[in-house]
Amino acid sequence: MSIYLDNNATTRVDSEVLQAMLPFFADQFGNPSSMHDIGAAAGAAMKTARQQLQALIGAKFDHEIIFTSGGTESNNTAILSALDVMPERSEIVTSAVEHPAVLTLCGHLEKTRGIKVHRIPVDQHGRLDLDAYRAALTHRVAIVSIMWANNETGTIFPVARLSEMAKNVGAIFHTDAVPAIGKLPVDLKSTAIDMLSLSGHKFHGPKGVGALYIKSGVPFHALIMGGHQQRNRRAGTENTPGIVGLGKAAELALWRMDEEITWVKSLRDRLEEGLLKRIPKTFVTGDPLARLPNTTNVVFEGIGSEAVQFLLNRHGIACASGSACSSGSSRQSHVLEAMNPDAAALGAVRFSFSHFSREEDVDQVLEVIPGIVMKLRGSFPFSAGGERRRIDNSAAAAR
Amino acid sequence: MSIYLDNNATTRVDSEVLQAMLPFFADQFGNPSSMHDIGAAAGAAMKTARQQLQALIGAKFDHEIIFTSGGTESNNTAILSALDVMPERSEIVTSAVEHPAVLTLCGHLEKTRGIKVHRIPVDQHGRLDLDAYRAALTHRVAIVSIMWANNETGTIFPVARLSEMAKNVGAIFHTDAVPAIGKLPVDLKSTAIDMLSLSGHKFHGPKGVGALYIKSGVPFHALIMGGHQQRNRRAGTENTPGIVGLGKAAELALWRMDEEITWVKSLRDRLEEGLLKRIPKTFVTGDPLARLPNTTNVVFEGIGSEAVQFLLNRHGIACASGSACSSGSSRQSHVLEAMNPDAAALGAVRFSFSHFSREEDVDQVLEVIPGIVMKLRGSFPFSAGGERRRIDNSAAAAR
Repeated sequence: MSIYLDNNATTRVDSEVLQAMLPFFADQFGNPSSMHDIGAAAGAAMKTARQQLQALIGAKFDHEIIFTSGGTESNNTAILSALDVMPERSEIVTSAVEHPAVLTLCGHLEKTRGIKVHRIPVDQHGRLDLDAYRAALTHRVAIVSIMWANNETGTIFPVARLSEMAKNVGAIFHTDAVPAIGKLPVDLKSTAIDMLSLSGHKFHGPKGVGALYIKSGVPFHALIMGGHQQRNRRAGTENTPGIVGLGKAAELALWRMDEEITWVKSLRDRLEEGLLKRIPKTFVTGDPLARLPNTTNVVFEGIGSEAVQFLLNRHGIACASGSACSSGSSRQSHVLEAMNPDAAALGAVRFSFSHFSREEDVDQVLEVIPGIVMKLRGSFPFSAGGERRRIDNSAAAAR
Repeated sequence: MSIYLDNNATTRVDSEVLQAMLPFFADQFGNPSSMHDIGAAAGAAMKTARQQLQALIGAKFDHEIIFTSGGTESNNTAILSALDVMPERSEIVTSAVEHPAVLTLCGHLEKTRGIKVHRIPVDQHGRLDLDAYRAALTHRVAIVSIMWANNETGTIFPVARLSEMAKNVGAIFHTDAVPAIGKLPVDLKSTAIDMLSLSGHKFHGPKGVGALYIKSGVPFHALIMGGHQQRNRRAGTENTPGIVGLGKAAELALWRMDEEITWVKSLRDRLEEGLLKRIPKTFVTGDPLARLPNTTNVVFEGIGSEAVQFLLNRHGIACASGSACSSGSSRQSHVLEAMNPDAAALGAVRFSFSHFSREEDVDQVLEVIPGIVMKLRGSFPFSAGGERRRIDNSAAAAR
């Protein structure tokens, strides 16, 4: 497998990140809670990591960050905490296109605890329905959880503005920024965002470690309880190698942010233009005006995205059909479903880039994919139904 | 720092474990949920790790194991799950000497959800009061959570027998086996134990990864919800390098179990005998007849354990004063408190060994510690109170 274009599912750990982690496995392996020197060394390294992360997300204080096992834990923690600290409120506002780490939990809370969940719809480009959002915001809402950007389409949500609106009704505003971190400048201290989730393995850090930002002063209740680690906000011996790796990945992401954005966008645009030029009846999903620079999500009319992905894999090209989380179980994308139910039946192929991606990768995809699509359309003859599913190709192509 | 005798706090990652992990950071870095070959490779590695762990704990099926972020998450998951799946039951039975990952959560549930918590007391050797245990077991109990062995004193609890008793009242039996795994043979399929928690970094695996065993057929509800990973029992992209490392550590622990037990016990006994011989008014806590082979927890009458630990650290010797989790916050040990309140005021120094430990380490401790204790006793003159705290020195010495 030589071409990896599935960086929204997970990324290769940067060699500098791995190098930074290595001493903490067998050399500075102490428990940060221990009172001897070996423990203290590990504790000091965590402090550095917290500051590296603080710089990346523009937090005001480093103690606003707690380390978790990843994005899913961070999302679960944020939502359950808000319900715990605001027991007089029993509603959640979220979007129809959130990651399952938010939607599955919300569905469970609805069923078991009588929480009312507002799932704000999106339009055909995946843009949030602001009127519906405004209407859902009342003093009954404990927490708003809206992603910074969608992991499948790359559509960016106006979270700064959304958080101001949530503040007006006294709700806690949380954003799942897992797909956005490292791909967009983030400066939390200039926003009304109360909580933010991120995950190391989405920006060349290690798997199994993430963070939750909790703005100073925002009431909080821990999900995982036990020892006094992390100021009683997340119990359990800290994953020091993972935390050090997350910190290093944050430092690198900040350092190369501008260059990386330019690079991945150029590759993404090159791929999109090539696909739209070479393959008729193809369209790109997501907001043409506000989209992650590294992501494209493409519908090939008349054929299922999983078949395309499967055949690309045979050519040594790794991409996604929907999100990794839902694709593993072969379910239809709830994101496409919310945007365009007709397209959802087919699915979309997602290509997502990182700074490791090369122009040759794009050219290789453009080389093999027309044949794959033609073959699939040939075996499942293109029907009039395909026409019906065509939407706004020109706007998407303009990105 | 050259002498590390704090292996119950955390252990050095074995070089073979680290070697096994390395390919999964930057080479086989795929998301196991992805449907392409890079993802599939990571998924296959997790399967192997699950089987390695299955062998170590003697589980009947590999699918009885879910990977978590560590012992604390596993403990929290087990207890909260039991309350969720048995809503008609509202009591928990645990011991007074559990890890904070169990006791803190239980205290919280007591306060916020009206759960009744039975904290079964222990005697001066840390042995569970079986009469009190029997009395607490009723059909109101959703879950019993009793540790396999105590992390501070090493006292082993008769969990096989305790689980049979719990079964009689239909309660789920969970054991926190974090301190025991790798130091005792475990064969779960021959017991009535329903759930077991373990943590990688306690037996030369990496930090940030653990597991929860859930016997096939035992009803379960996930703590962390989201994607469909791990058969919907623990959402979140799996920490593949960590899981691979945990599996390798399990394989190594099983492979060297007998040899390791013999080795650490010989070092532990050598240290205990030396301490008791050289330093008057010293005693060992814990059950003389059933104790982890690698652990000794020593009270030096008349002086505080933290001062001893502090001065040993100056000599380059790392050990613990209480558990790492509580020592970091300088609180009194709740374990000693439950066994012997007088001793708790002083605290105990814990030395815990691994197969990396050497005879020279023991000899070095024996070389410097008499001077340390004499110095401390000199500056805080030995009082009559010390005599009152002496208990059963001879029995402990006999171990």
